[in-house]
Amino acid sequence: MITLHGFAASNYYNLVKHVLLYKELPFKEHLIYGGSDELLAMSPAGKVPVITTSQGVNISESSVICDYIEESYPDIPLYPKNSTERAAVRQIMKIAELYFELPSRRLIPYAFSGTNAPESLKNEVRQVLTRGVTALSRLCKFSPWIAGEQFTMADIYVYHVNTIVNAFGASQLNWDVLGDVPGMKQWNDTMRQSAIAQKVEVDRLANIPEFMQKVTAQIQAANA
Amino acid sequence: MITLHGFAASNYYNLVKHVLLYKELPFKEHLIYGGSDELLAMSPAGKVPVITTSQGVNISESSVICDYIEESYPDIPLYPKNSTERAAVRQIMKIAELYFELPSRRLIPYAFSGTNAPESLKNEVRQVLTRGVTALSRLCKFSPWIAGEQFTMADIYVYHVNTIVNAFGASQLNWDVLGDVPGMKQWNDTMRQSAIAQKVEVDRLANIPEFMQKVTAQIQAANA
Repeated sequence: MITLHGFAASNYYNLVKHVLLYKELPFKEHLIYGGSDELLAMSPAGKVPVITTSQGVNISESSVICDYIEESYPDIPLYPKNSTERAAVRQIMKIAELYFELPSRRLIPYAFSGTNAPESLKNEVRQVLTRGVTALSRLCKFSPWIAGEQFTMADIYVYHVNTIVNAFGASQLNWDVLGDVPGMKQWNDTMRQSAIAQKVEVDRLANIPEFMQKVTAQIQAANA
Repeated sequence: MITLHGFAASNYYNLVKHVLLYKELPFKEHLIYGGSDELLAMSPAGKVPVITTSQGVNISESSVICDYIEESYPDIPLYPKNSTERAAVRQIMKIAELYFELPSRRLIPYAFSGTNAPESLKNEVRQVLTRGVTALSRLCKFSPWIAGEQFTMADIYVYHVNTIVNAFGASQLNWDVLGDVPGMKQWNDTMRQSAIAQKVEVDRLANIPEFMQKVTAQIQAANA
């Protein structure tokens, strides 16, 4: 059985968990936070999530884990069969990672410490997000799913990327980023109402207090 | 036949070109720089490289293009057959992207404009590169190839990532980053001596003067 290591406040963790639940694969969850030696022993860059496969091998990096799960458990497929259509799905995921997720993450330290990000950083983030809005507006179909008729890995991936865009990009920049991609907000609402997303959200909310305690302790240690 | 759009001074372009040459696939090269409307019509985020497939479909983002080529042209394979081994290959590529390539790229504007990057940025980049050094030291095998006995996509990928680490990370930080990953410099030298890498390098050097003219014009326009 697969073991999923990490914590439910992490959107990367929730992305992998969503994939496992969607594919109806049995798995165990193991609560572990960043920065521990136990995590470093499993994850070369010390990041969550990590999975331990049923053969006892550790795999880290969410996108790598998602591909591994798809290839090892092809039932209930999350990629189209045709390689050109698969590339379209992956292009949406990659652009969401580079132009939505990574720039929004740069604002997290300011949101967590309750400080205002410098204007120069906000401008940089705004520029990258604008590029993401343009590119995703061109690539996403929402008919009804993000890449077209088939529900794919990109639906799960972008939905969890969007939690970061909403929580940090939108709040620090005072900008409803998702509202600028035609069709994205309705699709995001549909995703949120799914039974799996609701289960993931309940677990996320339950983990938030403990996670925020860890964050506060780290900020206090850094300022001490 | 595949058309590869972009310019030879780009390491992302060269990565895809290296894969096409390694797989002995016929392709045409189409010289195009960033920022043009022609490129934006093909590449949703306006980035090079883009390929036009033999079916006339445009695909952008290097990692997506590499996966597409592998899946559409499985002869001369660049991924192991076993899904766990494939995950190990992808983990190396992902960590090289996140912890070697992307932080080194943040120093490019300073290198191009001949200015010194701020100490705070250098420190951030140093921290991320240090994480990359630790993670890649654990993951890379160099026996003789980066993921073990089989030559894989990770060899081509990391080799072209390393050109950016060497050109910008190392020079701006005065740090021989690759030298800190045991075995990486020898492997990198072996890669550089291959006939394909030498062909790619000749084309890269030939493109540098024109590319630097474009960069200089952009900097002058921004400062005007």
